[in-house]
Amino acid sequence: MDYAKESLKMHYELKGKIEVVSRAKVDSKDALSLAYTPGVAQPCLEIQKDINKSYELTRRWNTVAVVTDGTAVLGLGDIGPEAGMPVMEGKCVLFKEFGDVDAIPLCVRSKDVDEIVQTVRLLAGSFGGVNLEDISAPRCFEIEKKLKECCDIPIFHDDQHGTAVITLAGVINALKVVGKKIEDIKIVTSGAGAAGIAIIKLLISMGLKNVIMTDRKGAIYEGREGLNPIKEEMAKITNANHEKGSLSEVIKGADVFIGVSAPGTLTPDMVRTMAKDPIIFACANPTPEIFPDEAKAAGAAVVSTGRSDYPNQVNNVLCFPGIFRGALDVRASDINDEMKIAAAYAIAGLVSDEELCADYILPAAFDSRVKDAVAKATAEAAIKSGVARI
Amino acid sequence: MDYAKESLKMHYELKGKIEVVSRAKVDSKDALSLAYTPGVAQPCLEIQKDINKSYELTRRWNTVAVVTDGTAVLGLGDIGPEAGMPVMEGKCVLFKEFGDVDAIPLCVRSKDVDEIVQTVRLLAGSFGGVNLEDISAPRCFEIEKKLKECCDIPIFHDDQHGTAVITLAGVINALKVVGKKIEDIKIVTSGAGAAGIAIIKLLISMGLKNVIMTDRKGAIYEGREGLNPIKEEMAKITNANHEKGSLSEVIKGADVFIGVSAPGTLTPDMVRTMAKDPIIFACANPTPEIFPDEAKAAGAAVVSTGRSDYPNQVNNVLCFPGIFRGALDVRASDINDEMKIAAAYAIAGLVSDEELCADYILPAAFDSRVKDAVAKATAEAAIKSGVARI
Repeated sequence: MDYAKESLKMHYELKGKIEVVSRAKVDSKDALSLAYTPGVAQPCLEIQKDINKSYELTRRWNTVAVVTDGTAVLGLGDIGPEAGMPVMEGKCVLFKEFGDVDAIPLCVRSKDVDEIVQTVRLLAGSFGGVNLEDISAPRCFEIEKKLKECCDIPIFHDDQHGTAVITLAGVINALKVVGKKIEDIKIVTSGAGAAGIAIIKLLISMGLKNVIMTDRKGAIYEGREGLNPIKEEMAKITNANHEKGSLSEVIKGADVFIGVSAPGTLTPDMVRTMAKDPIIFACANPTPEIFPDEAKAAGAAVVSTGRSDYPNQVNNVLCFPGIFRGALDVRASDINDEMKIAAAYAIAGLVSDEELCADYILPAAFDSRVKDAVAKATAEAAIKSGVARI
Repeated sequence: MDYAKESLKMHYELKGKIEVVSRAKVDSKDALSLAYTPGVAQPCLEIQKDINKSYELTRRWNTVAVVTDGTAVLGLGDIGPEAGMPVMEGKCVLFKEFGDVDAIPLCVRSKDVDEIVQTVRLLAGSFGGVNLEDISAPRCFEIEKKLKECCDIPIFHDDQHGTAVITLAGVINALKVVGKKIEDIKIVTSGAGAAGIAIIKLLISMGLKNVIMTDRKGAIYEGREGLNPIKEEMAKITNANHEKGSLSEVIKGADVFIGVSAPGTLTPDMVRTMAKDPIIFACANPTPEIFPDEAKAAGAAVVSTGRSDYPNQVNNVLCFPGIFRGALDVRASDINDEMKIAAAYAIAGLVSDEELCADYILPAAFDSRVKDAVAKATAEAAIKSGVARI
């Protein structure tokens, strides 16, 4: 199928992928008086007395804002807020279809960190959570950090944390396949953007000790010239031996490669220098760092990509609908690491020990068990970590 | 019916009066690839090339933001953004049910004019229009003025202009009933808030010459101490004879009373001092400035209130859904006076000359002809006045 052509045709026909509908009848004077004035004054007054009632008397309990500034839309880059809307509407569709969440797309006409933060902060009372989307690094880190500080609802940058959760789930199962433990392995990344950093942070919190991140200039190490603040931070908690050099140099002996970078970054020759039974996550989209066939021919034991036409797809739809579903269900004030890790284990756990194999480390996007499993695990972790509010 | 009790019950049961639904199927890998990545890249690129395509490829063409800061919610006053949400959701229900418009409620956690303006300005690319709601005067004037200057989509403060349009429609028909012309009559208002000022401005643009506005301190005249800027502006274009004194003094000889103030402001004795066949708009809600029975007993020829249990209800639902429907249909950049006046005539015109009488000057809220008539007139006026963009 020519996805570009067919998608454009579909978008012209649909004229928008989401729609707001009414849950209240207004087909009589009485019905109007209940849904609107004068009756509506009473729920207003209840919320004025106790602001938490906004989660019971309005749709806030189930509503998430999908916020972008259009600066890092898919692989298209900075195309502007209006041009980002088709993706945001698509995200809202996925929120609904995979998580029963009402999601509202908000495309912000600003690239200024503080302006974006202020806009979301002032609207936080209208939503139960905020999903940040397709905001370029390093601004996305700052925006997320500031919003987490000033908002009383979960702030979740899916490009970072959704990808991190799925990758963690994949790593958990891939390590089972090859019989290794996270404490013992060496991981090398290609890419040190939003997703790569979130993945590594989450893996470190899971016990990973030996990890080197690389970017276009090669290995990131403490003291490397010209690192931005977030890479400097990562340099401090990774690459303990201060290894220098290109990806092809530092990948030697690595057990796992995680690519969140560019097509063709990983060559078969590099795979051959990795440790026994190498695990490859080649998540550049749509063209991966290395194609599964090539990687396997070079000795890879497990290969995962971002594509739906190969096994083991790292697809965020496995994660964000269930994570928000769980967070909303317990009125969480945050989506913290405990919740993300619980979600990753829930996703990994859907592949039974009997089914688990090199070509099945992650459930499929349409596995109907995913939402409930992720939501339940996320909600329980929210309660245990003290961020649940009901 | 005990509206307060029943409405609260209904709100607890519904858990939100609106909902976001998906218009795109995502029930297969292919469907997902069209609605989301990779297919969605194509509509994004089309909008990047031509930003106007956002009105064809996303839901922007049909989407309106309903924006409040919660400072003047119904008659409840400043109850805060969260407590205002039930009204905003109700407004969104009316937008959908009476105008086929997708409306999204945004309650802003700020009372600062510039912060509210900035928030809406930065989000204007996500919507086809903005309906301001329940924002207290005089801030509402400033917010509306600034937003009109900086946004490329219609900004409409319904509490002002919706009420003004319906009142104008009522005045047009009431004057027909008593056989008077707008150029010849004297109007006195009780109330000089957002609605009162918008009504009088629109009536003046229709040819009204003799008008006195009053507030709690009596007649507003040029040079009165302590007038706020907007009342000063009104003093210049009303009350040409600089009449001073209370409502009971200046109402003498008036043909029309327009009340947008407080219960019981107009007494039967005052009605008796008005000109022959006085027309009364007593729109304080839910308790009017004077009840219709009293007003009629004192000689009123036509009485209109904000209540659905009396004839001639001034109900904004007659106006804002159709006005926005018309504005969206022609992708208008503004909702200007020409459009408002056209809408008022369209509403007035739905009452035929044969039907027109003292107890039927305005169509009923559930008159199914209203939306299309108002939308058509508004769209035509938008085209004629040069603000239509298709």
